[in-house]
Amino acid sequence: MSRFLSSRFSSLAAYVPGEQPQDRQYVKLNTNESPFPPSPEVLAAVNAAEAERLNLYPDPECTRLRKKLAALYQVEEDNIFLSNGSDEILNFAFMAFCDKSRPVAFPAISYGFYPVFAQLHQLPYTPIPLREDFTIAVEDYRNIRHNIVLANPNAPTGLALSRAEIEEILRANPDHVVLIDEAYVDFGAESCVPLIGRYENLLVCQTFSKSRSMAGARLGFAIAGAPLIADLNRIKYATNPYNINRLTLAAGEAAVDSNGYYMANCRTIMENRAYTVDRLSKLGFETLPSQANFIFTRCPKLSGGALYAALKERGVLVRHWDKPEISDYLRITIGSREQMDILLEQIQEILKEV
Amino acid sequence: MSRFLSSRFSSLAAYVPGEQPQDRQYVKLNTNESPFPPSPEVLAAVNAAEAERLNLYPDPECTRLRKKLAALYQVEEDNIFLSNGSDEILNFAFMAFCDKSRPVAFPAISYGFYPVFAQLHQLPYTPIPLREDFTIAVEDYRNIRHNIVLANPNAPTGLALSRAEIEEILRANPDHVVLIDEAYVDFGAESCVPLIGRYENLLVCQTFSKSRSMAGARLGFAIAGAPLIADLNRIKYATNPYNINRLTLAAGEAAVDSNGYYMANCRTIMENRAYTVDRLSKLGFETLPSQANFIFTRCPKLSGGALYAALKERGVLVRHWDKPEISDYLRITIGSREQMDILLEQIQEILKEV
Repeated sequence: MSRFLSSRFSSLAAYVPGEQPQDRQYVKLNTNESPFPPSPEVLAAVNAAEAERLNLYPDPECTRLRKKLAALYQVEEDNIFLSNGSDEILNFAFMAFCDKSRPVAFPAISYGFYPVFAQLHQLPYTPIPLREDFTIAVEDYRNIRHNIVLANPNAPTGLALSRAEIEEILRANPDHVVLIDEAYVDFGAESCVPLIGRYENLLVCQTFSKSRSMAGARLGFAIAGAPLIADLNRIKYATNPYNINRLTLAAGEAAVDSNGYYMANCRTIMENRAYTVDRLSKLGFETLPSQANFIFTRCPKLSGGALYAALKERGVLVRHWDKPEISDYLRITIGSREQMDILLEQIQEILKEV
Repeated sequence: MSRFLSSRFSSLAAYVPGEQPQDRQYVKLNTNESPFPPSPEVLAAVNAAEAERLNLYPDPECTRLRKKLAALYQVEEDNIFLSNGSDEILNFAFMAFCDKSRPVAFPAISYGFYPVFAQLHQLPYTPIPLREDFTIAVEDYRNIRHNIVLANPNAPTGLALSRAEIEEILRANPDHVVLIDEAYVDFGAESCVPLIGRYENLLVCQTFSKSRSMAGARLGFAIAGAPLIADLNRIKYATNPYNINRLTLAAGEAAVDSNGYYMANCRTIMENRAYTVDRLSKLGFETLPSQANFIFTRCPKLSGGALYAALKERGVLVRHWDKPEISDYLRITIGSREQMDILLEQIQEILKEV
């Protein structure tokens, strides 16, 4: 920290992303990436003439990609906002809709970035505890005079609310924005996109990072009523108008064109998830019923921290947090069948030594 | 604007980037892009296996690219910060170093985004008038108890301060950050990078968009003492840790490796600039002495607005602002010789009709 940094950031604790070691090859099950490469159409799009036009700015309105996403999700183009990863949408939404008189609420156990955005912008926020079984209690979100941010499915639990439950929250908070972060929705949960147009306070946010194998390209999108999208654009055009580069735009367009490839991959992940949960259960693990591309699981014989460290030593990276409420658990990304078999084999080896 | 937008943004006027028409092909001399494609090395890097790894997150620390830039600019790796276009650095710097008690000053005629960042973050700011000849008066920046942002060369004038003049400003403001925005420095001005290590309040910001033909890839970088860089990282990791995608990182690394190609292109642009200024002068234009890849020029016979419109109708896009102090002028990007000849020919045609 320099002596020039504004005092309002002197205690800002940054979000700590999952490890991205550059030194060694791991079986990487720690940041919920897809094990599948981008579709052949995406590879072709990136490899084509677009690279030769890198000297020219990208289209700041992302016209073609918005059109394709609008068609896919059966909304209008002015219902779509695109961003440099969905974290950027979250950042803009915290900025745009929250202030001293409009605090924000989110589950106490959820995506660890939510409190960081609140602190970054000096926004009052209320973490709302989960039930003991890690589920979100819908009744806790009735008329709470806060904007609300919910990851659905929630992270790191993988548990999802139904669309009807979220509708209850939307109806109970008509004067506040309800942001549903659907980063993991394509792995079995109910999306709220069909509710767009019925609730002006609904803001849905999704990403190409997980189900669409594009974490490395940085592309997120929001779907909402046109006025909320206009607000996000107001922040974008006062922050970074050319927020998405040409190659990512081209990759995104090709990814929407090859949607079937990605949805088939999601079904494979869901099969691998069922397989992994079943095998872990036979080893005595307790796993929450996940609708995401990861599971949240605990081993009865080893602490979360010990199992994390033992797996890392054996070349398998998973995610662990030191927070007391969840320190027994590991969050494990569901990868390919081969990756899951390596994980399971290493866990069996580790358990033999306990 | 929705009824949910925080009232602090209700009067926020966004930055208006230059037109990026998607409908028609123009001779595009309005957003200071390079007329040259990326180097063959960059094309090869984008076309290689990197696209197949798009399912994995990029390196948030941008380790390889920072190492290459540090070697090129003869600084240490912890003197380098990378961003999604240099606008992102400006945004982070306004946030990090300014607040109610530390206002920011910049020339009244300069990059139009500076006041937008100040308004976005509700920061007090002081625009400092230029002299009548559009030069920056160094004495106006002595002990002003503000952080200072200077584009050098300045935009849209193209006029540059010498390194010695900037050093005077750095010495006169030891307790405030002096941000030198060197987006256009490779076209003939003196960079302040050699002063890094001597002034802890110096923050230099550059971009791959202009001299390195990568406006479409979105890549900017800051060079400063390690403590200022740590401050920028603090904001980044609380905003968007994976701010740069894999393809742009690969392109950036290859661009640094082919630095000679780009520096040769810069010399060509400088030759084309001299040629264009000379030809315009013969048509009666008055042009400020530019050290950038654009010129700021006025036609004695036509208003800036009229000439802008006439050129656009003839398929040549240049930049014009309605601000009274500069409304006589056009900012014209220096492109290829062929582009400049089309511009000059069209101007001659237009003048015949006056």
